[in-house]
Amino acid sequence: MRKEINLFDHTNEIIKEMQEGALLTTKCDGKVNTMAIGWGMLGIQWSKPVFVAMIRESRYTKELLEKTGEFTVNVPYGEYDKKILGYCGSKSGRDTDKIKDMGLTLVDGVAVDVPAIKELPLTLECKVIYKQKQDSAAISEADKSDFYSDEDYHIYYFAEVVGAYIVE
Amino acid sequence: MRKEINLFDHTNEIIKEMQEGALLTTKCDGKVNTMAIGWGMLGIQWSKPVFVAMIRESRYTKELLEKTGEFTVNVPYGEYDKKILGYCGSKSGRDTDKIKDMGLTLVDGVAVDVPAIKELPLTLECKVIYKQKQDSAAISEADKSDFYSDEDYHIYYFAEVVGAYIVE
Repeated sequence: MRKEINLFDHTNEIIKEMQEGALLTTKCDGKVNTMAIGWGMLGIQWSKPVFVAMIRESRYTKELLEKTGEFTVNVPYGEYDKKILGYCGSKSGRDTDKIKDMGLTLVDGVAVDVPAIKELPLTLECKVIYKQKQDSAAISEADKSDFYSDEDYHIYYFAEVVGAYIVE
Repeated sequence: MRKEINLFDHTNEIIKEMQEGALLTTKCDGKVNTMAIGWGMLGIQWSKPVFVAMIRESRYTKELLEKTGEFTVNVPYGEYDKKILGYCGSKSGRDTDKIKDMGLTLVDGVAVDVPAIKELPLTLECKVIYKQKQDSAAISEADKSDFYSDEDYHIYYFAEVVGAYIVE
């Protein structure tokens, strides 16, 4: 079961929860992968509701996302096992099946061919409408030193939020 | 008087109001200018609270912002005169003093040298931490046709929100 929500009635809690950790899930060739995220932005571009994801170039998620252009954002809503975020943030989907390892419950997406995750039930279904690699020359030396010492820059994925609901 | 607010307790109303219209204000060489905005994003980048503004290359605000890197976002909060947004969205600060024309009440900023506007009292003080011109090649033909028929692309200004309050 899904309870539809108005995205802009839940932005406060989405951003607050995301700072503690959320997941970003992709699916390609039948394989589902998820990664932990702590940053991102919500708002309006081209009169569309958008979520802006930041994915580093080295990430497995980047490979999958480049092929499909679709993802879900999976936000905690109520109690959940914090080990999920720790595990999904420390392993790569290149090496292991994180969904299986953590016993996560997948629920088919509606407008995207990527599932929701019942354990982190507040779900945004997202379709990429614009993407752009960061311009390293525009990042201050301080931020470079703090976040890009390995030159593993982010790609901004601006995605239209085509569905928002809580899995029940 | 200012009432400090927690940005992420007010994101819902900021984004909803912004869709109806808000202002983005700059100040350079003692001159204050403001423009209407309807798009933008709020969230987290580099563990900092950020507002992402989209300013077209042709805009006077772009010239001022390039010099100072600071702006305020001015969001309606309660009753206000809707003519303000209509006027500020239809005139350029190159041709007229919109603040004077509309009789807006400026209130000095705290962490930025840009004022708040009492008539649109929910205020974000913003300092640009990253900027990037849009990559026109990454925009779909449909979105180009809808929003960039004149090739006047946006620049994304990612700004740290260094203050958030309601002018009282």
